[in-house]
Amino acid sequence: MQTVAIVGTGLIGASFGLALRRMGFQGEIIGVSSEGALAEAKGAGAISCSAPLNEAARAADLIYLSQTVDRILDTINRLAEYVQPGVLVTDAGSTKVTIVSKAAECLSHICFVGGHPLAGKEVRGACSADADLFRGRPYVLTPPQGSPSPHLDSFRAALEKMGAIIVEAAPDEHDRALAFTSHLPQLLATALAGTLHEEANPAFRDLHGAGLLDMTRLALSSPDLWSAILAQNREHVLTALNKFLAHCTNVRDSVAMGNISELFLKGQEFALWVRDEKNLKR
Amino acid sequence: MQTVAIVGTGLIGASFGLALRRMGFQGEIIGVSSEGALAEAKGAGAISCSAPLNEAARAADLIYLSQTVDRILDTINRLAEYVQPGVLVTDAGSTKVTIVSKAAECLSHICFVGGHPLAGKEVRGACSADADLFRGRPYVLTPPQGSPSPHLDSFRAALEKMGAIIVEAAPDEHDRALAFTSHLPQLLATALAGTLHEEANPAFRDLHGAGLLDMTRLALSSPDLWSAILAQNREHVLTALNKFLAHCTNVRDSVAMGNISELFLKGQEFALWVRDEKNLKR
Repeated sequence: MQTVAIVGTGLIGASFGLALRRMGFQGEIIGVSSEGALAEAKGAGAISCSAPLNEAARAADLIYLSQTVDRILDTINRLAEYVQPGVLVTDAGSTKVTIVSKAAECLSHICFVGGHPLAGKEVRGACSADADLFRGRPYVLTPPQGSPSPHLDSFRAALEKMGAIIVEAAPDEHDRALAFTSHLPQLLATALAGTLHEEANPAFRDLHGAGLLDMTRLALSSPDLWSAILAQNREHVLTALNKFLAHCTNVRDSVAMGNISELFLKGQEFALWVRDEKNLKR
Repeated sequence: MQTVAIVGTGLIGASFGLALRRMGFQGEIIGVSSEGALAEAKGAGAISCSAPLNEAARAADLIYLSQTVDRILDTINRLAEYVQPGVLVTDAGSTKVTIVSKAAECLSHICFVGGHPLAGKEVRGACSADADLFRGRPYVLTPPQGSPSPHLDSFRAALEKMGAIIVEAAPDEHDRALAFTSHLPQLLATALAGTLHEEANPAFRDLHGAGLLDMTRLALSSPDLWSAILAQNREHVLTALNKFLAHCTNVRDSVAMGNISELFLKGQEFALWVRDEKNLKR
């Protein structure tokens, strides 16, 4: 793996570039992005040069797509005519079914592996990039498809050197789970913040604790990014939201009847389970 | 202020004791609690001795009630016959209307100030106590009632030395606001964790990011503590929950129709506003 192209040099793309350098990668890292994003990524040391997509794609052994999920689809479409045999294309998008299907359709002649680092932040841009962004965090990889690539093993080894915990998952398994573990929490943070916004109670400024800040942190996320994610995973997200609404209605009724303990214990059980390192099957 | 009695030496009570010592308080700090809690608080250096409620109440200039909100009511009831003229009684409970009314009824002959440090943790007990627990956090005080006390100014000065940010609020204003900023977020964390618990999807173990941990941290809280809080603030909590359920149903419909941007922007606006130090009126 001599040359890497990073398409979309925002938080994730620039962090990948920084992490590559930190683990000792000496080759060229070509950025493909808007002028402003490229300047930021270069300033941060995440890329060594920049090029248009066609040139970068022709030069690269690994093409890393770290744009918003709607743009990743568009790039996959455009990449088809530029990629060279043997290249490995991977993405870092938050949905997998749509992207992996698109790649199966357009990039069947080369090797494609869907990816998703579960390591976002509510801030954006290369100025927030971090060589340790992936450390200790799950990095989902979908099964390789298309033709084999000699760079697949190097890519997996690089992720491991970056401290990422590789988790293999089928695209639909990923999207179903993330609807509950990521897309639903995002929407609840947004809905909670929106509910308080509608109240327009100035006392909320002073009368809140750390719990509210935790529960509304995700509400800082960008609508552009999320509109595309939610559109691509709509069915699973609606299932998760409807199940939550039913459960939350139970919670409301239990508060009204004064018997909330059982629901608290169930919630506590899950919160402990998901934090218990012993449960991790990695 | 020579002698302080802390009734209920859990996380909050023991942190208050540690903070008193840290700011240079030299007097006796008497703990009133269960045997185990007293041993823990003494081990942590949060109290200097222990006594039954009647003895502690007779000796103290300041009586600090830091039990669960249902027990605070019970203690106020029992305190009536022990307290000496001039004493200041205050509490650290998460609801204010019920507690302040109870004090008006039972302790009208002495000075009572309702209090609520917005500084909890999801863990309990004196072993988690922290002399800096109140630092930089709002500490709500309700208007003093009953007869004047010479210790009121010392108590306020002590809170300020501990780094707490004193916020004056009427009991009902407090309970209405906290229903939205604390009790609602708590119930949403519990409802989210409960929804995921019901799915029983083992893939959730690996396929989640930091967002889920933020959004379920409060679900670790104790049901005993919360049953009593929710019972005392039931009407405001049900109002908040119903408004949230209506808003969250809108969010669901917007996801279905693919026009989520406006709701994201509202949520983002609130999340920024509540974090903006310039908005704080302190």
